[in-house]
Amino acid sequence: MSEIIHPSPDVDQALDGAETDPSLPKEQARERIAVLRTNLLKAQYAALKKADSALLIVVAGIDGVGKGGCIRLLNEWMDARHVSTLAFGPPGPQVAQMPALWRYWAAMPAKGQTGIVFGSWYHELFAELAEKKPDWGRVDHLAQRIREFEDLLTHNHVKVLKLWFHMSREGQAGRVQALLSNPDTAWQVAPMDLKVSKRFDRARRAGAVALTLTHAAHAPWVVIPSADDSLRSVHAGDAVLKALRSRPRPNRLPRTAVTPAVQPLRLDTLDYAAGMSKSDYEPLLAQWQGRLARAVRHKKFASKALILAFEGQDAAGKGGAIRRVTHALDPRQFRAIPISAPTDEELARPYLWRFWRHLPEPGRIAIFDRSWYGRVLVERVEGYASQAQWRRAYREINEFETQLIENGAIVLKFWLAITKEEQLQRFHDRQKSPFKTFKITPDDWRNRKQWDAYVDAANDMFAYTHTAMSPWHLVSANDKHHARIEVLKQIVLRLEAAINT
Amino acid sequence: MSEIIHPSPDVDQALDGAETDPSLPKEQARERIAVLRTNLLKAQYAALKKADSALLIVVAGIDGVGKGGCIRLLNEWMDARHVSTLAFGPPGPQVAQMPALWRYWAAMPAKGQTGIVFGSWYHELFAELAEKKPDWGRVDHLAQRIREFEDLLTHNHVKVLKLWFHMSREGQAGRVQALLSNPDTAWQVAPMDLKVSKRFDRARRAGAVALTLTHAAHAPWVVIPSADDSLRSVHAGDAVLKALRSRPRPNRLPRTAVTPAVQPLRLDTLDYAAGMSKSDYEPLLAQWQGRLARAVRHKKFASKALILAFEGQDAAGKGGAIRRVTHALDPRQFRAIPISAPTDEELARPYLWRFWRHLPEPGRIAIFDRSWYGRVLVERVEGYASQAQWRRAYREINEFETQLIENGAIVLKFWLAITKEEQLQRFHDRQKSPFKTFKITPDDWRNRKQWDAYVDAANDMFAYTHTAMSPWHLVSANDKHHARIEVLKQIVLRLEAAINT
Repeated sequence: MSEIIHPSPDVDQALDGAETDPSLPKEQARERIAVLRTNLLKAQYAALKKADSALLIVVAGIDGVGKGGCIRLLNEWMDARHVSTLAFGPPGPQVAQMPALWRYWAAMPAKGQTGIVFGSWYHELFAELAEKKPDWGRVDHLAQRIREFEDLLTHNHVKVLKLWFHMSREGQAGRVQALLSNPDTAWQVAPMDLKVSKRFDRARRAGAVALTLTHAAHAPWVVIPSADDSLRSVHAGDAVLKALRSRPRPNRLPRTAVTPAVQPLRLDTLDYAAGMSKSDYEPLLAQWQGRLARAVRHKKFASKALILAFEGQDAAGKGGAIRRVTHALDPRQFRAIPISAPTDEELARPYLWRFWRHLPEPGRIAIFDRSWYGRVLVERVEGYASQAQWRRAYREINEFETQLIENGAIVLKFWLAITKEEQLQRFHDRQKSPFKTFKITPDDWRNRKQWDAYVDAANDMFAYTHTAMSPWHLVSANDKHHARIEVLKQIVLRLEAAINT
Repeated sequence: MSEIIHPSPDVDQALDGAETDPSLPKEQARERIAVLRTNLLKAQYAALKKADSALLIVVAGIDGVGKGGCIRLLNEWMDARHVSTLAFGPPGPQVAQMPALWRYWAAMPAKGQTGIVFGSWYHELFAELAEKKPDWGRVDHLAQRIREFEDLLTHNHVKVLKLWFHMSREGQAGRVQALLSNPDTAWQVAPMDLKVSKRFDRARRAGAVALTLTHAAHAPWVVIPSADDSLRSVHAGDAVLKALRSRPRPNRLPRTAVTPAVQPLRLDTLDYAAGMSKSDYEPLLAQWQGRLARAVRHKKFASKALILAFEGQDAAGKGGAIRRVTHALDPRQFRAIPISAPTDEELARPYLWRFWRHLPEPGRIAIFDRSWYGRVLVERVEGYASQAQWRRAYREINEFETQLIENGAIVLKFWLAITKEEQLQRFHDRQKSPFKTFKITPDDWRNRKQWDAYVDAANDMFAYTHTAMSPWHLVSANDKHHARIEVLKQIVLRLEAAINT
């Protein structure tokens, strides 16, 4: 089977250039490095001061060409206290059970900081491409995931620079032998470095195709000729300097726009008269809670994770519905995560970071009381997010949920819907009740004035994020009994279906 | 062998009282609960507003007496968005390799918040005491660790309340049977609950002794009679209300003061003339780096963790020394953690939290550029910590390091020492060098004015925290070559000793 994807001429040319093993005279290098170091520090401190974006530098390339040395040099040239080396080996058991990008999210540097990523999110793509017969469908999927991730980063104040260290086959072999011949440097040679020469063509092709598939103006690949230490350092330093100085330059047009659902869910189509008497409710509650308790204790659930997101108007009864769910759960198994104002650590990172950090392991349950949909609800309505930001968020959120689901999570999203009249009634009731009056704040009255804007935002949200894999459940919640049973029922049916397949 | 530790009469009396299975008439309960709920919410919102302390509620007691129900009730009575249920089961493989308290540190609620802890740091103590023949030495050790931990919490803005749910043997057996007889509630019964009756005496004794050993005015145990649902709820709610309303009340006098070292290390005893020529330095550097590289790649290192803390005057060369260490390390194996101003998430938690969150797993290395000693250095000198706080910190730090070392970590602490003249010279050099001028800030000049105060603080620190298990290495650093080799050498010798035993 012939290759489906060929390297672009530009990439080939850059790699060919690096394979001529160019060098830089020492004298010249010294001068350039002196200027470069000063400028790198200047640019780094300017970035720290502005603190409007982070920089991630992906370090990749042929093994045994001095990538590690270059990382050390960058740490030496820049103020190392604001540079973190984020190096990833094969995932351990705990990491392996999480979505592939989880560990990169966990290590995300704050605005103003620089992260040097070694063993990056390209790991799987490189490995697949280095196979004798790559699975081109998988290649396509992995490349697409990477493009989405880097799009998201550059749209969320994280600049991405990718360095490919390269040299000729003979140059690489010579370099490794020179290191080996000195007992004080031999430890720098990894077993993999010795095998490069034999597999050079395949590794080169893998790199060339990967670069072709993932090069972008906003997240560029730069090929670093690595045969000569000085030239390698100067080229890498130059690329980093350029990235530090650049303004974050997001890709303005998403490759494919998110298509709204053809028959969108809408809040005005719900039957708000749906209700249930207390005498019907109580036995049903016990039954559904019993089924839920059995489902999450089933041995097949141990390999799944359950993620629940609760949204809805103020006073729609989210807290009460959540308590009816948690009642049936072992407290060791679930975590309830209330989402309110972000902390400064959260504000310094891409919007979705604060949700990635709370993802449950398999066999566990995360219950979000308000969720990542805040971006397209409160942040849209209150103007905390720009129109460009919240419009993009539909796509980012769908991609986020897709990653969770592909990793075996079951995701349920509930909108608890009440009418404007019912809300008013509940606000008044809360003000009268001695232990509910605390639940009502000036914010609630302020939000109520924006009722229509929230309804519009919610309807748009359903249209853009109600997907086959991750549907919205709109729950008529004027009657609390009805709403609670409905929520429990949807969760149980999804869980039982997942367990019985 | 007879029991060494007997329950105190107070504890016995409280447990006897609970075993009479008292109850509360429904009517009375309803009234008390209505008042209690309002007061709990009031107290909770007051605590949130002040945000000067967190509350941890330890939930323990005989199995199958309704602890879970009580947790649910507290979540219902209080605003659940500010209550986190922190429930811990048997530790998984990743948790098991960290110090025992690590997971409780990781889950620490922020100031203003309430955490309900289920499966707490008492787990091991209860288990040991429930053995037929407890190991009394181990009991003593575990109880001491708990007291130290709770002392630390109460001194660091975390109030601790501990609830022991209790009832008679017959009452417990009857309660479990009643739940089992209804298919909708049977799932609430755990296998352990069924065994309580048989082992009641032993479980009671374990609880009684644990309570005796760990009751303290600042971290009290409250016995909750649990036979009657209403009475149980009211008693638990009352205890929580009292704790929410209380001012943090730290134990003023540590049980045993930390004794300073008899022959303390002092900065004025160092030989600041120690030096090394470049021609001596370079081959030594390569040799020690080679030995370091081999040591951390040794299979025996996989079960250890290496924790390095670097302190010293400004411009003493910490960064340069750290880079000579990391040069020999695989970037996947280490993390460099620069310590500067805490984030708001860190400020909301006990001082040591920000170091616990960066502890390395076995086989990994954490390098702290400035460390937990900031409490007794910059925070003392600049007045960020009160005298009571930094004086207590010696003990807290020793306890922290002891836990790391007992868990298999190798801890090395370096003070890079330069003279006042050398520092002035370096400040001037930095101002002149185009790529070092960034490293000098007004802060550095301000700190320099406090030179003597820092020397006093450092000397006190050595006296109180230089221990046999975790000694300080004072490194004469006027000559950078000498200092870097000295640091590498101390690390390598400790590592090699640990590997060869």
